[in-house]
Amino acid sequence: MKAARLHELHKPLVLEDIPVPDIQPDEILVNVKACGMCRSDVQLVDGYFHKYADIPRPITPGHEITGVVRKIGGDVPRSEFREGEHVVVAPGWGDGTCRHCQVGNTHICANVRWPGFGLYGGFAEFLPVPARYLIKVDRGLKFEEIAPLTDAGMTPYRGIKKLRDAGALGPDRVLGIFGIGGLGAYAVQYARLLGSGSTVVAFGRNPEKLAVATEDGADHVIGIKNKTPADVAAELKKATGQDHLDAIIDCTGAPEVIQLATGLLGISGHYVDVGLVGDRIDIPLFPRVSREQTIQGSFWGNNNDLSEVMTLAAQGKIRHTIKTFGFEQVNEYIDRLRAGDIVGRAVMTF
Amino acid sequence: MKAARLHELHKPLVLEDIPVPDIQPDEILVNVKACGMCRSDVQLVDGYFHKYADIPRPITPGHEITGVVRKIGGDVPRSEFREGEHVVVAPGWGDGTCRHCQVGNTHICANVRWPGFGLYGGFAEFLPVPARYLIKVDRGLKFEEIAPLTDAGMTPYRGIKKLRDAGALGPDRVLGIFGIGGLGAYAVQYARLLGSGSTVVAFGRNPEKLAVATEDGADHVIGIKNKTPADVAAELKKATGQDHLDAIIDCTGAPEVIQLATGLLGISGHYVDVGLVGDRIDIPLFPRVSREQTIQGSFWGNNNDLSEVMTLAAQGKIRHTIKTFGFEQVNEYIDRLRAGDIVGRAVMTF
Amino acid sequence: MKAARLHELHKPLVLEDIPVPDIQPDEILVNVKACGMCRSDVQLVDGYFHKYADIPRPITPGHEITGVVRKIGGDVPRSEFREGEHVVVAPGWGDGTCRHCQVGNTHICANVRWPGFGLYGGFAEFLPVPARYLIKVDRGLKFEEIAPLTDAGMTPYRGIKKLRDAGALGPDRVLGIFGIGGLGAYAVQYARLLGSGSTVVAFGRNPEKLAVATEDGADHVIGIKNKTPADVAAELKKATGQDHLDAIIDCTGAPEVIQLATGLLGISGHYVDVGLVGDRIDIPLFPRVSREQTIQGSFWGNNNDLSEVMTLAAQGKIRHTIKTFGFEQVNEYIDRLRAGDIVGRAVMTF
Amino acid sequence: MKAARLHELHKPLVLEDIPVPDIQPDEILVNVKACGMCRSDVQLVDGYFHKYADIPRPITPGHEITGVVRKIGGDVPRSEFREGEHVVVAPGWGDGTCRHCQVGNTHICANVRWPGFGLYGGFAEFLPVPARYLIKVDRGLKFEEIAPLTDAGMTPYRGIKKLRDAGALGPDRVLGIFGIGGLGAYAVQYARLLGSGSTVVAFGRNPEKLAVATEDGADHVIGIKNKTPADVAAELKKATGQDHLDAIIDCTGAPEVIQLATGLLGISGHYVDVGLVGDRIDIPLFPRVSREQTIQGSFWGNNNDLSEVMTLAAQGKIRHTIKTFGFEQVNEYIDRLRAGDIVGRAVMTF
Repeated sequence: MKAARLHELHKPLVLEDIPVPDIQPDEILVNVKACGMCRSDVQLVDGYFHKYADIPRPITPGHEITGVVRKIGGDVPRSEFREGEHVVVAPGWGDGTCRHCQVGNTHICANVRWPGFGLYGGFAEFLPVPARYLIKVDRGLKFEEIAPLTDAGMTPYRGIKKLRDAGALGPDRVLGIFGIGGLGAYAVQYARLLGSGSTVVAFGRNPEKLAVATEDGADHVIGIKNKTPADVAAELKKATGQDHLDAIIDCTGAPEVIQLATGLLGISGHYVDVGLVGDRIDIPLFPRVSREQTIQGSFWGNNNDLSEVMTLAAQGKIRHTIKTFGFEQVNEYIDRLRAGDIVGRAVMTF
Repeated sequence: MKAARLHELHKPLVLEDIPVPDIQPDEILVNVKACGMCRSDVQLVDGYFHKYADIPRPITPGHEITGVVRKIGGDVPRSEFREGEHVVVAPGWGDGTCRHCQVGNTHICANVRWPGFGLYGGFAEFLPVPARYLIKVDRGLKFEEIAPLTDAGMTPYRGIKKLRDAGALGPDRVLGIFGIGGLGAYAVQYARLLGSGSTVVAFGRNPEKLAVATEDGADHVIGIKNKTPADVAAELKKATGQDHLDAIIDCTGAPEVIQLATGLLGISGHYVDVGLVGDRIDIPLFPRVSREQTIQGSFWGNNNDLSEVMTLAAQGKIRHTIKTFGFEQVNEYIDRLRAGDIVGRAVMTF
Repeated sequence: MKAARLHELHKPLVLEDIPVPDIQPDEILVNVKACGMCRSDVQLVDGYFHKYADIPRPITPGHEITGVVRKIGGDVPRSEFREGEHVVVAPGWGDGTCRHCQVGNTHICANVRWPGFGLYGGFAEFLPVPARYLIKVDRGLKFEEIAPLTDAGMTPYRGIKKLRDAGALGPDRVLGIFGIGGLGAYAVQYARLLGSGSTVVAFGRNPEKLAVATEDGADHVIGIKNKTPADVAAELKKATGQDHLDAIIDCTGAPEVIQLATGLLGISGHYVDVGLVGDRIDIPLFPRVSREQTIQGSFWGNNNDLSEVMTLAAQGKIRHTIKTFGFEQVNEYIDRLRAGDIVGRAVMTF
Repeated sequence: MKAARLHELHKPLVLEDIPVPDIQPDEILVNVKACGMCRSDVQLVDGYFHKYADIPRPITPGHEITGVVRKIGGDVPRSEFREGEHVVVAPGWGDGTCRHCQVGNTHICANVRWPGFGLYGGFAEFLPVPARYLIKVDRGLKFEEIAPLTDAGMTPYRGIKKLRDAGALGPDRVLGIFGIGGLGAYAVQYARLLGSGSTVVAFGRNPEKLAVATEDGADHVIGIKNKTPADVAAELKKATGQDHLDAIIDCTGAPEVIQLATGLLGISGHYVDVGLVGDRIDIPLFPRVSREQTIQGSFWGNNNDLSEVMTLAAQGKIRHTIKTFGFEQVNEYIDRLRAGDIVGRAVMTF
């Protein structure tokens, strides 16, 4: 089968032809039809994760995977899956026994495994997936549209649920979304769906991406390129009547955005971060404690999160901003994504 | 001033001319411009509340009050209010010191006072209101539209917030709204705003009212008149793919609706009731315990709830279904409301 | 093997000798060492559950099960269990795929299976259990003490967690525990452990059981036999300074207790019920809605609940009030439990 | 009256004789009987807060205030207070109208005022206090014991409530308390009262202070002086069986403690910080996001928090570790507190 694999950090993926993998009795062989490309794929190539884990190579990147059931392991109940069914792959495969797995948060299991961060991934024609991490989807949905929902489309969903469940959203609250790339375009939509009437403000550097935010339902967009925090606060005040944000989802994790965003966070504000561009968070202590602010990491999502997102997709409640490319273009698109010139999500299709 | 007052239970209100009331130093004299008529006004006349509290008469009914600041007590800071400003009256005036008042739930204070359930109420030209229970509103909003927001429009808002905060709403959940009268028409709208993508199903007896629910954004409406519970469950299944409800707001409190609705409540389901038509709740014990269902009373709302509702109104996010009438028609409209032939909310205007 | 089985409702169990059951590849054969006797075992014999589900007979009752791993199915990872290990059986075996199972609430799965309510149960020498529903326990713990923790000791734990998570407990709150039988004696202890300083009041009819509540740490005990609600409220006031309860766990489900307890429930009060003596809950509507009270069913518990309870037991934080009996006495003890003269929990040991 | 006032930063307080202050109609004149000394009093002298707010001088420090009602303003209802009653002063006086005040969080009001950070404070014989910020206390309680409860004894209470309400505490969780100074000694006790059976580990530098933690009920204490993070993790593992913490309350805010503590924080861990020694929080981004950790500021407390703490004190559930000193020794004790050689809380008494 075709596979694009990382043999050496900082080098292009190698496009090769390798054997179709075997499956274990509790696994299903998925024939990949589409796979979204994530900023973390670029970071994988660029060695960002190397300081946290030394993953044996070759690695097959690609974790936003959808495809078709090709072969079913012997222990998978016949009633659950049939060959030919369309599926998405829920990421974050836990050990099933720890406290986090017991409540469904397999993605934060200490023994978690991830497709796309090891031998098997979505930039290949086939991969084995434990049956319990496949979610069946309607044939009417387009592969290229649902692939990114497994990360770009799920990660901000979980993040905004955390804001909602913390009581940070409501008619008299202003929610800021930082970074309108792959994740942010979905974040804006969930802000409308889950925001209980919150005013939604998108912040970004790229006017083309901010235009997407407007199309996705942002009440206001604010460009932050070459602006001081005071400039941004003044624009926010003009747009919404208040110079601070009650809730924030940061889809970047970039140091300068963290500085800007935390500086705008209001009293009792909630800040959820899902982005991983930088390495540290370095912010003032006193204002955060004395204003009782909360900073909460949110990471990807679990089976229930993905089921809910797929339900929204099936109901036509999600607007997709994607750009497809072919398997042979994978290295070209890694470069383009690194350069920041992808609007919405790039998706590889076979 | 003109006032419509209850001198004797089960008798029409007496329309009379009485002196304008005095105010205390912490109060403001409000010149009533519009007052919604609530089913509880009818119940007040009909003696429903008499078994719970023997309110001295005469009573001036009317608790959905909006108007204009006419006179300001000496202890009210000058910076807060000015004569001529438009205000709505937050109901539920607490003692300010108990545990519930401390967290803003003045409406469940053991020593609570209510406009419209004592000497002063909204079916009169003036009433005194403690300044802290007045919320300023934009002059652009219409009195007859905002009056009902102080009860009919706030009560289901608080109820649906409880469903949301209990984690009962989301893309894969079906939320049922029972009773599409004064409150239900708003409930449908909040179900959309706060529902996080829940499927919204309105249940009612009156086709005309169900049509309002559809206009207000219900995904499905189901008439329940002359239908068995099994019929209703079958219709629900056909409409939504499931024969049970994950969340319910019951705007009626009627015994037959309680039976029907609790019978439709699914595993781990949440049921919030805000209606007071009946006197008892009598439901099976075992299914409720073994399915871990929750039944939660929600009553009116507090200052923050009303502020949030007023924000939604100011943003144009609330659709109003009202019918105005004049002061002289108050007894006629009490009869019409008792008969159940008011669609939406009837509002008295001076 | 020896087994005590129900062949006919309303008749004694038949003590018989039957073959040791087979196991499935994902199951483990447990050699039962101790099994607690629950009021629901009596109700099973007496036909209480028959109106809700017609379970094929013979039924082997007994669901509070602990024992030793005897045989391990082929699909169970070798690393997880070894023969001879001590285990308790987590009840409530779900289908593993529904929304409730995904978050660990397998016990409210629509397709749930229960040991002791079908062919296999704890009043037999052996039973097959899916490996994922076994929790390993320290050999130092006594079988007869840990058996009841799987229901009597877990059910009130989950119930009181619900009270805690609802914000109903704290230093200025009074928590009432109704029914000091098998569950209530544990409930009193959890009220201390999880109560955040709440004042704990135990209510019951039997002075001997109330004495157990005192030993378990109740701040006050109040006998309710032959007393009016007003008497009970007056005693409560005398003991605690307030005539109402902020939180209630009802371990009975008996109609007269439901009446009494809900009548004592204060403003914004939370009432969790775990008992199943009666068939209906029939309470006034208006006070419950207008005081924003919550009634929440809590049923048994899940794997995490049981793990937490077993941790408390291993730390020596649970006091056990048990009385052991032999296999041959099972029918005698069913009669004694029905008569209400068991203090604490009766546990069968082989 | 006697007053110790700060006329110049970095200089000793000036002990002087000044007129007794007047009161406003809604205020009460409190005759101070005892006032705890807080690290923030030292920081006030040392200019820590100067970068956040330029408070006009002279300042009367001292915000842990208890005393006796001496004079009552004209607008305070006669029924509420009487001369001679014992009271504690709830800090954090809000404007009463903002969203935070509405739910009782007056201490995070944007317009908040604090005793001890302006003209009036507790290191003086008298100060005026708005009546709504006084809580009556039993005459049987000792002034020197209850004074520190208004900050040292309330701040960790609110912090640990946040951990509890976030679901971070329970029998299988390990809670770490960092810093066993004025606040930490109380924190250990609340960890027991509110911990739902959590294992409590106290971390500190000073053996004498760690001994207090043991007396206050810590399951384990770990000295951190001159130890590497790996050393500390190893000790933690030896003591509790796990090398990480599920919940943390940091009573220091010191940079090296923040580094150590966040490094020990486990998956899905909650970290509440109440300490203000340092100026920044600078921690790695990736582990925090990928492990879904939460960092939450908690600041002092509100009226309800203080009422709950006073209830615990009245029930004898709080153990006090205090050292009293006289008014004339105030500068000496500021120096001693700065040097870190106060065990428990130093309290000035008149």
